[in-house]
Amino acid sequence: MISLVNDYSEGAHPRLLEKIQALNLQAHGGYGLDTYSEEARALIQRELGVPAAIHFVVGGTQANLTFLSAALRPHEAVISVASGHINVHETGAIEATGHKVLVAEGVAGKLTPQGIRKVVLQHEDEHMVQPRVVYISNATELGGVYTKEELKHLRAVCEEYGLWLYMDGARLGNALCSEENDCTLRDYAQYMDAFTIGGTKNGALMGEAIVLLHPAIQKDFRFLIKQKGGMLAKGFLLGAQFGELFRDGLYFQLALHANKMAMKLQKGLLDAGIPLWMYSTTNLLFPILTPAQLTWLEQHATFSIWERRDDDRVTVRLVTSWATDETKVDAFLTALQQR
Amino acid sequence: MISLVNDYSEGAHPRLLEKIQALNLQAHGGYGLDTYSEEARALIQRELGVPAAIHFVVGGTQANLTFLSAALRPHEAVISVASGHINVHETGAIEATGHKVLVAEGVAGKLTPQGIRKVVLQHEDEHMVQPRVVYISNATELGGVYTKEELKHLRAVCEEYGLWLYMDGARLGNALCSEENDCTLRDYAQYMDAFTIGGTKNGALMGEAIVLLHPAIQKDFRFLIKQKGGMLAKGFLLGAQFGELFRDGLYFQLALHANKMAMKLQKGLLDAGIPLWMYSTTNLLFPILTPAQLTWLEQHATFSIWERRDDDRVTVRLVTSWATDETKVDAFLTALQQR
Amino acid sequence: MISLVNDYSEGAHPRLLEKIQALNLQAHGGYGLDTYSEEARALIQRELGVPAAIHFVVGGTQANLTFLSAALRPHEAVISVASGHINVHETGAIEATGHKVLVAEGVAGKLTPQGIRKVVLQHEDEHMVQPRVVYISNATELGGVYTKEELKHLRAVCEEYGLWLYMDGARLGNALCSEENDCTLRDYAQYMDAFTIGGTKNGALMGEAIVLLHPAIQKDFRFLIKQKGGMLAKGFLLGAQFGELFRDGLYFQLALHANKMAMKLQKGLLDAGIPLWMYSTTNLLFPILTPAQLTWLEQHATFSIWERRDDDRVTVRLVTSWATDETKVDAFLTALQQR
Amino acid sequence: MISLVNDYSEGAHPRLLEKIQALNLQAHGGYGLDTYSEEARALIQRELGVPAAIHFVVGGTQANLTFLSAALRPHEAVISVASGHINVHETGAIEATGHKVLVAEGVAGKLTPQGIRKVVLQHEDEHMVQPRVVYISNATELGGVYTKEELKHLRAVCEEYGLWLYMDGARLGNALCSEENDCTLRDYAQYMDAFTIGGTKNGALMGEAIVLLHPAIQKDFRFLIKQKGGMLAKGFLLGAQFGELFRDGLYFQLALHANKMAMKLQKGLLDAGIPLWMYSTTNLLFPILTPAQLTWLEQHATFSIWERRDDDRVTVRLVTSWATDETKVDAFLTALQQR
Repeated sequence: MISLVNDYSEGAHPRLLEKIQALNLQAHGGYGLDTYSEEARALIQRELGVPAAIHFVVGGTQANLTFLSAALRPHEAVISVASGHINVHETGAIEATGHKVLVAEGVAGKLTPQGIRKVVLQHEDEHMVQPRVVYISNATELGGVYTKEELKHLRAVCEEYGLWLYMDGARLGNALCSEENDCTLRDYAQYMDAFTIGGTKNGALMGEAIVLLHPAIQKDFRFLIKQKGGMLAKGFLLGAQFGELFRDGLYFQLALHANKMAMKLQKGLLDAGIPLWMYSTTNLLFPILTPAQLTWLEQHATFSIWERRDDDRVTVRLVTSWATDETKVDAFLTALQQR
Repeated sequence: MISLVNDYSEGAHPRLLEKIQALNLQAHGGYGLDTYSEEARALIQRELGVPAAIHFVVGGTQANLTFLSAALRPHEAVISVASGHINVHETGAIEATGHKVLVAEGVAGKLTPQGIRKVVLQHEDEHMVQPRVVYISNATELGGVYTKEELKHLRAVCEEYGLWLYMDGARLGNALCSEENDCTLRDYAQYMDAFTIGGTKNGALMGEAIVLLHPAIQKDFRFLIKQKGGMLAKGFLLGAQFGELFRDGLYFQLALHANKMAMKLQKGLLDAGIPLWMYSTTNLLFPILTPAQLTWLEQHATFSIWERRDDDRVTVRLVTSWATDETKVDAFLTALQQR
Repeated sequence: MISLVNDYSEGAHPRLLEKIQALNLQAHGGYGLDTYSEEARALIQRELGVPAAIHFVVGGTQANLTFLSAALRPHEAVISVASGHINVHETGAIEATGHKVLVAEGVAGKLTPQGIRKVVLQHEDEHMVQPRVVYISNATELGGVYTKEELKHLRAVCEEYGLWLYMDGARLGNALCSEENDCTLRDYAQYMDAFTIGGTKNGALMGEAIVLLHPAIQKDFRFLIKQKGGMLAKGFLLGAQFGELFRDGLYFQLALHANKMAMKLQKGLLDAGIPLWMYSTTNLLFPILTPAQLTWLEQHATFSIWERRDDDRVTVRLVTSWATDETKVDAFLTALQQR
Repeated sequence: MISLVNDYSEGAHPRLLEKIQALNLQAHGGYGLDTYSEEARALIQRELGVPAAIHFVVGGTQANLTFLSAALRPHEAVISVASGHINVHETGAIEATGHKVLVAEGVAGKLTPQGIRKVVLQHEDEHMVQPRVVYISNATELGGVYTKEELKHLRAVCEEYGLWLYMDGARLGNALCSEENDCTLRDYAQYMDAFTIGGTKNGALMGEAIVLLHPAIQKDFRFLIKQKGGMLAKGFLLGAQFGELFRDGLYFQLALHANKMAMKLQKGLLDAGIPLWMYSTTNLLFPILTPAQLTWLEQHATFSIWERRDDDRVTVRLVTSWATDETKVDAFLTALQQR
């Protein structure tokens, strides 16, 4: 039995827990105003090339709703693809702060300049909301990765229409370590107005870093974090973990491992003749299974159903993580071959 | 130098960290749907005597804003004393969910039936908000504790006017272990419609348990937690910690230690002729210092300024916690005596 | 030149203005608590067959946002077709009260049981909003009318899933007086949990009646009206107008005139070989024009562009109203014939 | 029997109704984009001396909530005296848009620089909301009037702390025509960042003009009006009325009449030995009555109870308006003398 149900089933990479253990009984500044958070901010800043305001919050929904409520005036809206996390899986968190999520057409879960342009052109008078932020996730909910060329074009259309470009990086490590990827954090810092760096799904107990590039968005951001309930009293826990992740490249090693495990699984599935909804280069796989294959899989792995198709087949989602045990992957694939 | 600045400077009690360490690499159910959260819920339930829905969230502001947005219709308001955490120290979190905080008169930071009644009687027509929840904190922001008699009277006025009674227990351990206290968790479960049990300030890395007694408030509560960004992906971390705290009384031991350290300090301050703003039986002390005393204190402790008085004296806040080192307390008091 | 741009270009039917004139200098109760509002409520109640709470507000967006914020808990959402007024033309008013508008598939601008069912089945866990109200407009934004059979089926699916059924009747008169229609206000009162009766677009200076059938939605509704800014100080102005409209059938006469003018125009357009986007039985027409026809129309009428098509043709919207002058319609059609 | 219960019991001054009658059957631009609204804006602009953006909405709560939601970021708050309309009588409308109303100490219902300063100094870190707008009403809820000197000082403290100064002018005419007053609209335009000019309580069927002086607040304001439900489809009705009110000074004549009637009543009350809660120079009077006087008054006027005092006396509120009939005032005073 291998766990492929999500990338947040386990706790933290042991180095992070050791770090917490080591500083556990010291007296720290509260609410992110501590030396470990300072250090983590400096380590992330080092990767960016341009000055940024960096904040740590506990979770991804918190990060998204805090950023968007800070960036949008009441009549302004955020553009997302239909499958965007903010559009479906945050229980209306964005609307609960008063803002509409405008759905744009995308390609395989990725937003396109055409999709943005079409939405903008449809919203021209005061009887409609005004698009103001473009939301992308990278890697996407479907495991896709934005290339530098794609980000450049998204940036161009955002500048044309005066939109902020915001990237939800809950799986940013997986994007950065994808074989498709040609971007660095420095590139993101150049093309985005703000983005997040996910810790929860890449080795931390919890935690997302919010990187605010555009000065206009930086103002008073801590007030917003506090108001939305995202300001952790023991903020040093987040600082300590991000410090370990960015001290010497651990963040990238962990994501690379997750991706490698997914690639190994993907090859095995294709070798076994199982088709994929789309080819992945990150840690999310969407094989399409016959009922018999599904039954077999239920005996060998935990996973989630993505979609019941019109034929009797089912698309399932398999997820690897920094914690995925390669020996279990190998055993799974051996069993699959022998099936 | 002794740290008396707050009760969340340190990490977790070692037993809690050990527990996290032990389960760190297991695959857990996500979002609080795991065996450790189940166990912790059962352990807390055991203390209550009546059936409750129990949820864990990361922080206190999160707990308050989620509960209140669940309990209130848009035109309904919550009653609090002026010093209530929701009224002052949550950056308008309650208003950000659309609700007014109505300030009632209290006595020494504690809400009274008279205070509630007066507010209710002032809000009689549809041009004003309608009071619907009564908020108390226990221990209060000023270190006060509600007795059983007091809660009984608050309950009575709430029933008279159809109000929910909600208790913010960020420092519930300190209240329960106060020498003034005559309540148990079972009593709270009887008198309240909902209350929280604070972990952050009593030995946990983070975490508050929300105890929902009244069935009408229980409905769909997880939707609200998710929407407000309070649903921790690795919810087992909260379950594991509350499990340790409530397995064998650790929660009470830790709070008792904090209170004892405060009582020792209080006696020393009084012996040194330093007056207190009010006598405390919990872990918060408010001595009133002359400029010379303040200068001395700055050299011997970290703490916070509470209020600059009209004379040249200053009220400061001293806070002890489960982590306060008794040898440091003794050294501090010796130095104070020798001053 | 004939004005076909909308159905709110003129003021009120003369009888309504006369009524206002007549009571102008009397002293009335404020905020809808006056004898004229009482009378208007009684006149509308007479048409319903079942007891209802009836409120008057100034405008349609106000009516929709007030009703929906009253009916929905924070995590609950409203289902609408994409073209629904609340989804597009209210500048995010519903989201500004904290709620998501879920788009369901419809047929020609009308919502179907299948569309509702699909949305409901997609929203099953606490990471997604929970559908709770179904919004239809009647007549629709595209001029369509719901039949009794259709409403019965919508009602059935709403009862199956515990949803409120709400009808935006900004153009309810046009629906009721459509040749397609087989419903009365009494039928609406049976199938709906709430609906509005539009005055603004049918002879009043302003005003919509909100009819609340289900008792659970009636509670405290005046508080919500006040909070959302919809409580008119001189509410007798709304009562006086609705009284005139419902005293002796004026409401229906006015809508019937608007529809008749549209039918006459529609026949003329079809006779002239101009295709329609869809056949109308109410007061909205959507002819598809060639560039030459568009140029001609610009010289003979005011109207609005609905959509630029992929070919070089344009869909325009023509609107008639209670105030449309039949002699101008005839002159327009004569000119069209002679073109 | 004389009606002294409020200043919105009657409809409109006959000239306004005649104007509406005259333009009733013309086809107008919708939503305030019509020639009458343009003209009214120009007429008001003429009084201001500096360029402003001027919008018309139906009611005062609408004006306040729309302005404040436009001016405030989510963590920002508005300062008001306790008796401010936004703090008490709008059913939490401001909080419903997400913002806290901070209560400052005032003198006799008027806000002072000291009151503002104290609130600002108490709100210094990110755990508290940030004051950003100062709200005053003029005339106040208690009938008081701000002098030029007072406004100058309020302005100074606002500039010192970077606050917007906003004046709710629901009774602006009464302030401007008070014998205490030394300000003109031009002065208000100089000292305020925004203010409203009330029509509802001074001769119009309904309508408040919102005057936005500071360019930063002007941006996208129509989007906000629409979202909050305040955009009247037949906006020409508001334009037509404000046009009449400001064409030749009618606005001032009407308010002057209301004030004169109040002064006459006030003198009569004082002559009859009835004390006042405070001396008034506008249209609101607050006599303090013995039970016997109260009984007498109930037989001679409609009015409202303001406050039951600790002795057995009652403070009542008497209100005059543009529609108050002087012969009725005289008859009332004669009866009072003969009592």
